[in-house]
Amino acid sequence: MQEAIKRLRQFRDARDWKQFHNPKDLALALSIEASELLEIFLWKSAEDADPGRVKEELADVLAYALLLADAYELDPTEIVLKKIEINEKKYPISKSRGTAKKYTEL
Amino acid sequence: MQEAIKRLRQFRDARDWKQFHNPKDLALALSIEASELLEIFLWKSAEDADPGRVKEELADVLAYALLLADAYELDPTEIVLKKIEINEKKYPISKSRGTAKKYTEL
Amino acid sequence: MQEAIKRLRQFRDARDWKQFHNPKDLALALSIEASELLEIFLWKSAEDADPGRVKEELADVLAYALLLADAYELDPTEIVLKKIEINEKKYPISKSRGTAKKYTEL
Amino acid sequence: MQEAIKRLRQFRDARDWKQFHNPKDLALALSIEASELLEIFLWKSAEDADPGRVKEELADVLAYALLLADAYELDPTEIVLKKIEINEKKYPISKSRGTAKKYTEL
Repeated sequence: MQEAIKRLRQFRDARDWKQFHNPKDLALALSIEASELLEIFLWKSAEDADPGRVKEELADVLAYALLLADAYELDPTEIVLKKIEINEKKYPISKSRGTAKKYTEL
Repeated sequence: MQEAIKRLRQFRDARDWKQFHNPKDLALALSIEASELLEIFLWKSAEDADPGRVKEELADVLAYALLLADAYELDPTEIVLKKIEINEKKYPISKSRGTAKKYTEL
Repeated sequence: MQEAIKRLRQFRDARDWKQFHNPKDLALALSIEASELLEIFLWKSAEDADPGRVKEELADVLAYALLLADAYELDPTEIVLKKIEINEKKYPISKSRGTAKKYTEL
Repeated sequence: MQEAIKRLRQFRDARDWKQFHNPKDLALALSIEASELLEIFLWKSAEDADPGRVKEELADVLAYALLLADAYELDPTEIVLKKIEINEKKYPISKSRGTAKKYTEL
């Protein structure tokens, strides 16, 4: 992922776009891209969604997530691993097994 | 990132949650998490947003993005690098430098 | 608003689209349209957003909100008025005046 | 709807919240509420979603949509009716009947 972040920075800086990339607008862009990804599934079942478009839109989502992580000097892998640890306590296996009732995340 | 994906799979399977994780609902979850991240910036400027909450919500966004990539057998780093190549053609430096006019993504 | 709901139903039924309009997909469509509205403000300040586009996208948001209300046989005006009453208790003037700290909604 | 808009203005002004309600943040709030509505349907079919929660979250969506319409001095009913006219041309009955293929909105 470090390679991807490096390339995203280069892409941005070659276009002098850092001026637009304040964290609030990056969060907007991330949410907008996640919504474009969601649109691929609108009015249809998962099987009928176009995998090629999923690949493209998911790449956009990841790109903005990495740029936002970079803006806060966060390591993407590290924060995911830490969040899993938190969720392991929040959703103990004994109480969570086979039920989506209580959790709205992860 | 491979380590994070492996741990996310383990977390999910220990709770028998794969049954809920069809790609359409994963895309919903991703969009919902991106919106929770956005909420941290609501009614305020980027400087006033809480970095600790950004870290937590961004981790959730990344987690679902990785699970969705995994569902389609996509390599997260690879699809981001490929998308940058596409965008390099779509937004040539000479025409894109310093202007956010034409692009709505990346 | 009753006139608008009536016309939305006619538009939908003339195209035989009710089959796609289950509440889950209507909620997806509403969220996607709200995101398209948000995109008008991306990378810019509110003053630089195009009011003509706001009008178009806001109309889409309202259309899906009305269709969803209709699906649950809810009166749009009535549920807004009821929610204001709830929020009047939740955000008493004495504690809420001039501060956005506590509320994330309305 | 005029009654609801009037009450929303009173609610906002009694708390001196107009200072936070610039159109960009109103669009953020609208998108966030639409996402909370969507969350009611996450990991489940439409039938299993809680209608009481739909009512509450849909009211929030409508409230922000009305406040945004008000900020741009738009009549909610009027813009919906106008958008239906536009969509009648965009999606002629003869070509749209029974297919969700081409349209991503309304």
